[in-house]
Amino acid sequence: MDGVRALVFDVFGTVVDWRSGVAREAAPFLARHGAASADPHSFADAWRAEYQPAMAEVRSGRRPFTRLDVLHRENLAAILPGFGIDPAAVPAAELDELNLAWHRLDPWPDGVPGLTRLKRRFIVAPLSNGNIALMVDVAKRAGLPWDAILGAEVVRAYKPSPESYLRTAEVLALRPEEMCLVAAHNDDLAAARACGYRTAFVPRPAEHGPGQTTDLRPEADWDRIADSFELLADGLGL
Amino acid sequence: MDGVRALVFDVFGTVVDWRSGVAREAAPFLARHGAASADPHSFADAWRAEYQPAMAEVRSGRRPFTRLDVLHRENLAAILPGFGIDPAAVPAAELDELNLAWHRLDPWPDGVPGLTRLKRRFIVAPLSNGNIALMVDVAKRAGLPWDAILGAEVVRAYKPSPESYLRTAEVLALRPEEMCLVAAHNDDLAAARACGYRTAFVPRPAEHGPGQTTDLRPEADWDRIADSFELLADGLGL
Repeated sequence: MDGVRALVFDVFGTVVDWRSGVAREAAPFLARHGAASADPHSFADAWRAEYQPAMAEVRSGRRPFTRLDVLHRENLAAILPGFGIDPAAVPAAELDELNLAWHRLDPWPDGVPGLTRLKRRFIVAPLSNGNIALMVDVAKRAGLPWDAILGAEVVRAYKPSPESYLRTAEVLALRPEEMCLVAAHNDDLAAARACGYRTAFVPRPAEHGPGQTTDLRPEADWDRIADSFELLADGLGL
Repeated sequence: MDGVRALVFDVFGTVVDWRSGVAREAAPFLARHGAASADPHSFADAWRAEYQPAMAEVRSGRRPFTRLDVLHRENLAAILPGFGIDPAAVPAAELDELNLAWHRLDPWPDGVPGLTRLKRRFIVAPLSNGNIALMVDVAKRAGLPWDAILGAEVVRAYKPSPESYLRTAEVLALRPEEMCLVAAHNDDLAAARACGYRTAFVPRPAEHGPGQTTDLRPEADWDRIADSFELLADGLGL
């Protein structure tokens, strides 16, 4: 990690537990709309399943850059029928409010203490596909001590496109090898490495719930592997 | 200030003392290059005088958006002959290093304690023409506790263009009236107010040195007027 100046973080799954947070807010919504028997975790999974296809439209150039709050809102309307809810029958303000569940996600327990230590030596910032307002709201509510809010909206490119990593380094006036991506996802790390980034894998075996089968183990020789941000800080002598 | 959710700050002059900081780093440079008799504060003033004309090229559309570090570097080369220094005779790396004087500016004494208090209730972020790397470096060195780094580079528009204020509100998913610009400059506040922002004037009578004649007093009925960020926090009950 010699020469690394900035640690940039995947956020959904790596820093915050999106599945529990979305399920927590979906439960009363489902109950109000006659879907009390639906599993709110399945609802969170269904919503998240629309995430990559929606961004693929932007990455391919078929759609101009559109911030994630807008994609999330569209995706929410798209999944409701699968839970027996007609989106046209729900007041728009109520869907807008549920969409903000993504702004109120909780970090994993090591998030704040780990970032606080890592920040002593490195610039720490999200490199997330989440938009700036979403990242600011999550950070302010949870106390995440970011030095800046970077990511897709700043560079107008969604991960894992090379532009998302390369332009983020450029914004910090750093070379790719001075950047390290911290992520719980092997594919994100592989894309960052292909751009010259250093890589740190922090597995989050509960991201997808008790039956998780993906990203339980490192799939390459990442520069650092640690089971939490605090252990990552330990390994870096912080 | 009812309904205000974010305080965004002008930075050069309002948060940091650019003139002293640039002069401090210019002095040994001038001495090394045969201009020891030059006043380093005049050098800082000359460098800063090129700031608005350089951005005017971008605001007019004659030049694509170019981050401030690049404009500062060009402006540095432009002013050297006036101090008897041939820019072509100075190693580029030395000019690059002097250009980073803008990344090492000190805040006014109330900067960190004031922002720390204001951050308790509001999103606090720079809305500066300085680029992201510059703002991150200044904040990290000084301990400025920003919630995000916003400003010209994020919205690709220089103040006082309306786009700079309007797009910054949009990035935060806020309406203009939920934003308050904090600035030591009446013209910046006037431009923000014209976009619907609330306004807070914090005069910095030493920004331009002992002979300052501008921005000593409010030139309109700004929503808040306070002589420091701490007094601004006092007035807001923080």
